[in-house]
Amino acid sequence: MSSTKERLVIIGADATGMSAASQARRLRSPEELEIVAFERGDFTSYSACGIPYWVGGAVDERDDLVARTPEEHRERAIDLRMRTEVLRIDVRGRRVLARDLEAGKEYWTTYDKLVIATGARPLRPSLPGIDAPGVHGVQTLGDGQALIETLERTEGRRAVVVGAGYIGVEMAEAMIQRGYDVTVVNRGKEPMSTLDADMGRLVHEAMTGLGIEMVNDAEVTKILTDDDGRVRAVATENAEYPADVVILGLGVRPETELAREAGLPLGDHGGLLTDLAMRVRGYEDIWAGGDCVEVFDLMSGRERHIALGTHANKHGQVIGSNVGGGYATFPGVVGTAVSKVCDLEIARTGLREKDARAAGLRYVAVTIESTNRAGYYPGAALMTVKMLAERRTGKLLGVQIVGREGAGKRVDVAAVALTAGMTVEQMTALDLGYAPPFSPVWDPILVAARKAVAAVRAADEQPS
Amino acid sequence: MSSTKERLVIIGADATGMSAASQARRLRSPEELEIVAFERGDFTSYSACGIPYWVGGAVDERDDLVARTPEEHRERAIDLRMRTEVLRIDVRGRRVLARDLEAGKEYWTTYDKLVIATGARPLRPSLPGIDAPGVHGVQTLGDGQALIETLERTEGRRAVVVGAGYIGVEMAEAMIQRGYDVTVVNRGKEPMSTLDADMGRLVHEAMTGLGIEMVNDAEVTKILTDDDGRVRAVATENAEYPADVVILGLGVRPETELAREAGLPLGDHGGLLTDLAMRVRGYEDIWAGGDCVEVFDLMSGRERHIALGTHANKHGQVIGSNVGGGYATFPGVVGTAVSKVCDLEIARTGLREKDARAAGLRYVAVTIESTNRAGYYPGAALMTVKMLAERRTGKLLGVQIVGREGAGKRVDVAAVALTAGMTVEQMTALDLGYAPPFSPVWDPILVAARKAVAAVRAADEQPS
Repeated sequence: MSSTKERLVIIGADATGMSAASQARRLRSPEELEIVAFERGDFTSYSACGIPYWVGGAVDERDDLVARTPEEHRERAIDLRMRTEVLRIDVRGRRVLARDLEAGKEYWTTYDKLVIATGARPLRPSLPGIDAPGVHGVQTLGDGQALIETLERTEGRRAVVVGAGYIGVEMAEAMIQRGYDVTVVNRGKEPMSTLDADMGRLVHEAMTGLGIEMVNDAEVTKILTDDDGRVRAVATENAEYPADVVILGLGVRPETELAREAGLPLGDHGGLLTDLAMRVRGYEDIWAGGDCVEVFDLMSGRERHIALGTHANKHGQVIGSNVGGGYATFPGVVGTAVSKVCDLEIARTGLREKDARAAGLRYVAVTIESTNRAGYYPGAALMTVKMLAERRTGKLLGVQIVGREGAGKRVDVAAVALTAGMTVEQMTALDLGYAPPFSPVWDPILVAARKAVAAVRAADEQPS
Repeated sequence: MSSTKERLVIIGADATGMSAASQARRLRSPEELEIVAFERGDFTSYSACGIPYWVGGAVDERDDLVARTPEEHRERAIDLRMRTEVLRIDVRGRRVLARDLEAGKEYWTTYDKLVIATGARPLRPSLPGIDAPGVHGVQTLGDGQALIETLERTEGRRAVVVGAGYIGVEMAEAMIQRGYDVTVVNRGKEPMSTLDADMGRLVHEAMTGLGIEMVNDAEVTKILTDDDGRVRAVATENAEYPADVVILGLGVRPETELAREAGLPLGDHGGLLTDLAMRVRGYEDIWAGGDCVEVFDLMSGRERHIALGTHANKHGQVIGSNVGGGYATFPGVVGTAVSKVCDLEIARTGLREKDARAAGLRYVAVTIESTNRAGYYPGAALMTVKMLAERRTGKLLGVQIVGREGAGKRVDVAAVALTAGMTVEQMTALDLGYAPPFSPVWDPILVAARKAVAAVRAADEQPS
């Protein structure tokens, strides 16, 4: 324990920043460590991932999404300064320039240790009409609030969602839940480009089955407005889609302007680069985590940008432990993600076919259909599992799942197997839980693994 | 490919036997391999695990539980002889003595390769009244049919289930579904002795909450009958429990009389001992699998008897591959099991505290409460996870879960981690699927792993 009191400054008071603050506080008393956190917005520690469910009505209140309020943080001796934006990081001077947005006042404050948790900003293409009333992003609680207010004010019943990734499909569900006619305009060949197109096709079909109009291979060229300047349609090169409200779900980019200006190392995707302990590379006393960093992909051996609350929380936990004098690491990700559109569950982990090709791997891909429960058990429903394995070695490379209840979280078995470097042959012997309400006697993951083993063997018998 | 036609004889035409037959047939044509299967009962390839759901009414028809009928097997060139019991195995003569139960005719038939898949028989204590009308086991489809006929004939509304393991709790659910008042009489301190008692306690409380009367620490001394000789109550040393029907759920023992008489090697639990390829130890041409064998427990390094359909099917698959000229293995189990009582899900894998003690391991045990979904998401419900880790190494030893929807199959993550030999520290970094409808931002397994890490560290700081 140091006898000199240290000062920890945190930029951004959401998942990563406040997890780091809380964990550091657990390890170090206010006498040992002063913690100052700056947040330019109105909220702390909220679940951005929950916004679609709030808009859709499954979650009642905005505050349900707030895990911990500013007051709760302050009770734990964290000097949290809301509506205060950090304008500059002076690395040599170990200080940051902050601006109190209410008072309009700027001031420098010093740090011994700095955590950058500035998150991500949504992609917002510079299209004609993009700023028209009725066009909404859904990145922040404020965005969600603005959208809900629009929906409550508007008579309209037609929504166009731009983008068919996680946010896009979740917002399509939300608008269906609100009784809207929904069109999803998607640049890709199929929705969910985090899946291979054959699996994305299943999502496409299910969404069409839910009454959602899916427009693939389409680039939005402009947002059309009415005489009042309000949105009335979304235009692509080939068509116009009438819209009372437009929701942008085009993904996000790391919010790293501050870091860039401070000369901190950024990766190819614009995210901060850190070491295993979430320390910014080359900097002893600066940590970063959450949506503003790139994460190491254990499968490809490369850095990626993945904005996901579960990573952000882990990063915060790791940073807080290290800042607090312990030692913790974040080894990387295998690329697991799960989502749903109404009762359709969508999950993936590891490499897609195009990732495997890009990595120069020779692989086999198999797809099987099975059910979530024993076929005779009530509620048994189809599930499609696609599995990739390396040729020769049989090493598991990736799994994609599309199905009904109980399908999505099955991807976790594959995520652990990937982390452990298992072969598909080893996977066929996995002792997974079986009872008729939970699984067929061969769990779908085992069925896929068996087929993958056969494919690996068959591929070995062919000339390479 | 051999030019001499071989003859495969299979004793027992259920999960293991017929999986072996089917897989062998896939690999070897009828010109290469003749397959003869003997079944003393009336059914093939059925899901015994489904019987409670058939009795409870979730599954409509007996035949829903039959995966493949005798006719379907015969269409695949399998010479299936129903209602034919094998009376003796002559290992030296490579032949078996069969008895056609209909014709009353006995005959010897030779084999080149033999598969023993004789299953298990239910424990049936020799108590006064145990054979009275109204006392039922639920091991076979015939048992299930007999019970359902009794229930349809009987006016009564009081059921006593003897035993509180998987079958016991599932049958308690089934009888609740049928509108009965249910009492479970259990020898153990808490139900589900495959869990530690603290977790069993949660099952106890939930079952009580469902209106099931739980009687623990109680040994049945006799079955009391009325003047007609029909069951009227179950007696323990201390009390009598009125019963219109009694269901025995006391577990099973390997059915290995034939094997024992033939001099084949049996283990401490009475099951056949096999090698990794499911070959009976020391015998070149005899395989065995399913409920009549002991399986290798990867956690304890010892043989156990676990009657479970998923193992039986894997064994059959492995045997069929090996008999058919390929090579496959069954490395062992980590002891995963999952079950439910109404909406309470119960799961376990690996070692309990008493197993860890018996193995001479020094361990820490932690228990956490979390939810199946994000706390704010509709349907979020409590889940309790208990995790054991080895002191010093931090190696995961076991996980037990009791909770609502989505709790049970989470045990699979731990099953894979056990198989891979992961530490709880490694588990904290697992990239598990997260979205609010599927998990809190920290999956309950991760929360448990974090607490286990802290416990391992704290234990290290204490004198050992």
